[in-house]
Amino acid sequence: MDAITQGNTHHLRDAARQARLDIRAGNWQSLTTGMAPGIVQGNLVMLPRDWAAEFQQFCRLNPKPCPLIGMTAPGDPRVPELGDDIDLSTDAPMYRVFRDGELVDEVPDIRALWDDDLVGFVLGCSYSFEDALVQSGLPMRHLENDTKVPIYRTSIETAPTERLRGPMIVSMRPFQPVDAIRAIQITSRFPNVHGAPIHFGDPARIGIDDINVAEYGSPVDIRDGEVPVFWACGVTPQSVIEVAKPPFCITHKAGHLLLTDRLNAEFAVL
Amino acid sequence: MDAITQGNTHHLRDAARQARLDIRAGNWQSLTTGMAPGIVQGNLVMLPRDWAAEFQQFCRLNPKPCPLIGMTAPGDPRVPELGDDIDLSTDAPMYRVFRDGELVDEVPDIRALWDDDLVGFVLGCSYSFEDALVQSGLPMRHLENDTKVPIYRTSIETAPTERLRGPMIVSMRPFQPVDAIRAIQITSRFPNVHGAPIHFGDPARIGIDDINVAEYGSPVDIRDGEVPVFWACGVTPQSVIEVAKPPFCITHKAGHLLLTDRLNAEFAVL
Repeated sequence: MDAITQGNTHHLRDAARQARLDIRAGNWQSLTTGMAPGIVQGNLVMLPRDWAAEFQQFCRLNPKPCPLIGMTAPGDPRVPELGDDIDLSTDAPMYRVFRDGELVDEVPDIRALWDDDLVGFVLGCSYSFEDALVQSGLPMRHLENDTKVPIYRTSIETAPTERLRGPMIVSMRPFQPVDAIRAIQITSRFPNVHGAPIHFGDPARIGIDDINVAEYGSPVDIRDGEVPVFWACGVTPQSVIEVAKPPFCITHKAGHLLLTDRLNAEFAVL
Repeated sequence: MDAITQGNTHHLRDAARQARLDIRAGNWQSLTTGMAPGIVQGNLVMLPRDWAAEFQQFCRLNPKPCPLIGMTAPGDPRVPELGDDIDLSTDAPMYRVFRDGELVDEVPDIRALWDDDLVGFVLGCSYSFEDALVQSGLPMRHLENDTKVPIYRTSIETAPTERLRGPMIVSMRPFQPVDAIRAIQITSRFPNVHGAPIHFGDPARIGIDDINVAEYGSPVDIRDGEVPVFWACGVTPQSVIEVAKPPFCITHKAGHLLLTDRLNAEFAVL
């Protein structure tokens, strides 16, 4: 790594750390979209120890929707592999608390809820591969529109464990075929942040009846010659957990993610 | 490389050398399709020195249809980079001779035609990436049908040089989208044998009016849910040369290729 590159990455990490300190202090309780560009952001799931091994197995069986990039020891909210000072009980801007599958609270920190029984998981997020697509000059409609990427429930079943099962959730970005080929190449380099698409073309083939009706986010127009390209989405594990109804679970609020010290570029396998 | 692998590759190269000796001796004047599996086969173009630099430039500008993998010195038919004993004047099973763009002969060797003015070019061929697709468990319709891959003229113009210009020719293989994504990943590893597809989906977008009418080869059926996937094809340079009508040119006859000592696996960039 030459001096200029190292300087740049230090700068990126410094920005992420400063933002994380602001979030930890309670000064930022909003979306993290676009914060600390170039830095990996993570989705969060906290579960009782009794569910942790099974959730880890579910992630292992379904790496595209559930790319596990960090995990705590039971009772310890730190994740040093993603950043020395990271504390999952304070470092997301907003959390959602579930009891028996029901949303019971939305809070800016969970210090009062953290206990020795909890295990925290950090999952890779599409912001990272979108960063790589943007860097490669591939425009994305939802970014042009300044809307959230459209997300759909599919008929593709995840590989189940004893208590965790359900359909894969996907995000969609339309591209001209030549750009779709390039997007497949680029996202293939990032298996830890959902990786290559799981489908392109006819939405009905994966159980999406109407591409103009998104489950989350905002539909985008698919222009002449474009094909919809579908990536596995990190909403999948949250959806699966909602159905499984563990006695206790905490997640980040959508779009309110953990800022890590890792660079998106570090996550490229090639 | 462990002993077993090395043993296997020696065996592959031995088979290629033996086949090449048979071809050189005039004992095999037929198709090389399926011969010496795992070994790179090459398309041939021989041109007068006056055209050689321009053809090389045309290849450099159009690496997807014209992946240059070997080149002789003027007047010297050897290509040691592809095999110590290779002689382009004897080692293809059948040659086609053109004068002023007109096919004037089809001969099993060109020793009598070779002279100090000729430069030989070897271009990578789709057999190599098809080998990688087959090894990855991706079936191809034309192989199942035991027919030649369908080939089409497109409306995509190659990057021209002074005398060389014309449309890109493509081959087509239908896949389910999930297999098409895998095929894009696999062929991206092989830029020297046409690399990633240049298009998928609607044939009309690249000027193919009727997918059931191929320029060469045999059309294949595109089944429910499948999309046609298009790769740049080595027929492109032959087509361009036919139009340019150099005073003298020799090519291999379609399907009657040069067997090299190089392994397909060696050509993977990743």
